[in-house]
Amino acid sequence: MHILIDKENLITALSVVQKATSVNSPLPILSGIHFKTSAEGVVLSATNLEIGISTSVAASVQTQGGTVLPAKYIFDLTRRLPETTIEIITDQDINSTIIKYADSEVNLHGFAEDEFPSFSALPDIPVFKINQESFRNILKKVVFAVSTEEYRPIFTGVLFDLNRESMTIVATDTHRLALQITPIELGIEESQNFIIPGKTLYEIIKVISSNNSLISIYLSPDNKIIFRNDNTVITSRLIEGVYPHYKQVIPTNFISSFSVITKDLLNAIERTIIFAYKSEPIRIHIDETYISIFLNSEVGRIREELPIKLKGKVMDLAFNPHYLIDALKVIDTDEVIIKLTGETSAAIIQPTEDSNYISLLLPTRLKI
Amino acid sequence: MHILIDKENLITALSVVQKATSVNSPLPILSGIHFKTSAEGVVLSATNLEIGISTSVAASVQTQGGTVLPAKYIFDLTRRLPETTIEIITDQDINSTIIKYADSEVNLHGFAEDEFPSFSALPDIPVFKINQESFRNILKKVVFAVSTEEYRPIFTGVLFDLNRESMTIVATDTHRLALQITPIELGIEESQNFIIPGKTLYEIIKVISSNNSLISIYLSPDNKIIFRNDNTVITSRLIEGVYPHYKQVIPTNFISSFSVITKDLLNAIERTIIFAYKSEPIRIHIDETYISIFLNSEVGRIREELPIKLKGKVMDLAFNPHYLIDALKVIDTDEVIIKLTGETSAAIIQPTEDSNYISLLLPTRLKI
Repeated sequence: MHILIDKENLITALSVVQKATSVNSPLPILSGIHFKTSAEGVVLSATNLEIGISTSVAASVQTQGGTVLPAKYIFDLTRRLPETTIEIITDQDINSTIIKYADSEVNLHGFAEDEFPSFSALPDIPVFKINQESFRNILKKVVFAVSTEEYRPIFTGVLFDLNRESMTIVATDTHRLALQITPIELGIEESQNFIIPGKTLYEIIKVISSNNSLISIYLSPDNKIIFRNDNTVITSRLIEGVYPHYKQVIPTNFISSFSVITKDLLNAIERTIIFAYKSEPIRIHIDETYISIFLNSEVGRIREELPIKLKGKVMDLAFNPHYLIDALKVIDTDEVIIKLTGETSAAIIQPTEDSNYISLLLPTRLKI
Repeated sequence: MHILIDKENLITALSVVQKATSVNSPLPILSGIHFKTSAEGVVLSATNLEIGISTSVAASVQTQGGTVLPAKYIFDLTRRLPETTIEIITDQDINSTIIKYADSEVNLHGFAEDEFPSFSALPDIPVFKINQESFRNILKKVVFAVSTEEYRPIFTGVLFDLNRESMTIVATDTHRLALQITPIELGIEESQNFIIPGKTLYEIIKVISSNNSLISIYLSPDNKIIFRNDNTVITSRLIEGVYPHYKQVIPTNFISSFSVITKDLLNAIERTIIFAYKSEPIRIHIDETYISIFLNSEVGRIREELPIKLKGKVMDLAFNPHYLIDALKVIDTDEVIIKLTGETSAAIIQPTEDSNYISLLLPTRLKI
């Protein structure tokens, strides 16, 4: 392989793929980035076997070929280079690569490219396509509710529930749930669903470019999910198993409801947890004209109060403050609507202008 | 104590003094900030017994008094408040303080103010005064060379060597030395010198405001050094002992010298250490028309080359790359002058336009 590549182009591509490298894997080659010349330049790929990312970048190809270079070194070196053209020359027989810039050069030991894991082939037809920015927005509003506890793998993923006219995505860790319905002409005959790891979706959120082009989502015959946008392809395993019935846990009748300025409520909770021990619950009193949030601790006590107009019953509840913060942070309207079903049963948090989005949170039972 | 204080004013003052609090001291009161009403408002103070910082801030005083509040809580709370007026009311009999904002309030347990350590009184006449921004600049150029090894306390400090017409400040950890002579009319009769802890000077660098007003430096009768600028007083212990004779280690005859673009040399060294194990020395070859920097490691080898015009002898040296980086980072001219006395004796690093500044660095003896 012999290529000439612009520094800025290379660093952009390395930034995208290096997230999928695995530093501590028993397979050292997974700490590397696969370079492979293509018709348009070079394709960079990395994988930790859970997720694989590849991206294509413009380069002047002098000689076709490929190699696997240690990600840390090629990335740290490139980002410290001035704006310049970099020449990369690999001797594939000895897996040795020379990187030249200005009057200087680096000689890097790499890995044999035929030992690098292969990626699933891209099917001809995607399951669906969606505007990238919209996709990122709906992912952000749901993915925070996945569980991080690997012993129940189903809850570490986000359910994608597709039918002919809409896509519903759902995440829950059993204490909270977030759900977004997106009207979208999917043109599929039968409804279908799959569970994508939350970790994969966090990477998708980072990799999606802020433009109005589409991202295509494919299912491969070997049961992988594949995302493809402008230059980048992300492949991930799916989570196997049957997702629990989520519709039945969403309440439709409420005892009390009110709206409050989202930012004010968020700030009040963030001040309250300064005095909390870890995820110690905070108490909330909802009255006719105000909501108060309070906490007693060894160093003192705090009582925050915000004005509301309550519809329904006065109530006392307790919540894990971090769950409340996560839920409020993705509300993108100035005010947030909070609906309550009881002091120990589900609360619903919704933006004022999107009835297709629901965030559900169970109060904590306080020991008194 | 009962005061009304603007949030922005309070957070600015807390940011300044909280650096001197001590979180892990056996004296819990040192984790606190002393509030004390004054003629103009309130004075905030903190100390870890090594360094003390106090700053005065405008406030509307309703009732005179004072208290000591836990720094972490008052700081975290204040920075999360919206722009508002905060009311602080202390019941000094029970060391309890109520902090009110909007419709909310916090009740904090504090410490008895009479248990807070007292600060040295400010002498009438300063030893000298200097422009704040100039003072910060010369401190930055020298303080990096102090030792962090507490077992030789002298080298953890910066020597201030004053005579009638100039101030020389010097730091060395015995591997490197930085020295700045500042012509300044001190108006003192006899030369005098003192050693200020490097840690104190790092705080001074942070606290100094970027304006053209003066900072005054005092020596207290109890052998403390006191810095005073617009609103803030910083008190520190001095390091006792006799500083080694530094003048005799600075060479005046050189075998070779050259100048090179400061940023290019710095970047080349920063790329080289990507491949270095910890502080492994880098090798430098100085030739008639170029300087090359190189390193071999398990992952590969790097060779950086930059153009120079050498005056004197071709030479091979080795350096601790981090020491070179520290020295180059404080050079504020586009080019840097490097003068050599031999392959194993002192090298001098100087800006092109400040003959009053010298940075000295000993090469490393390489095992071959």
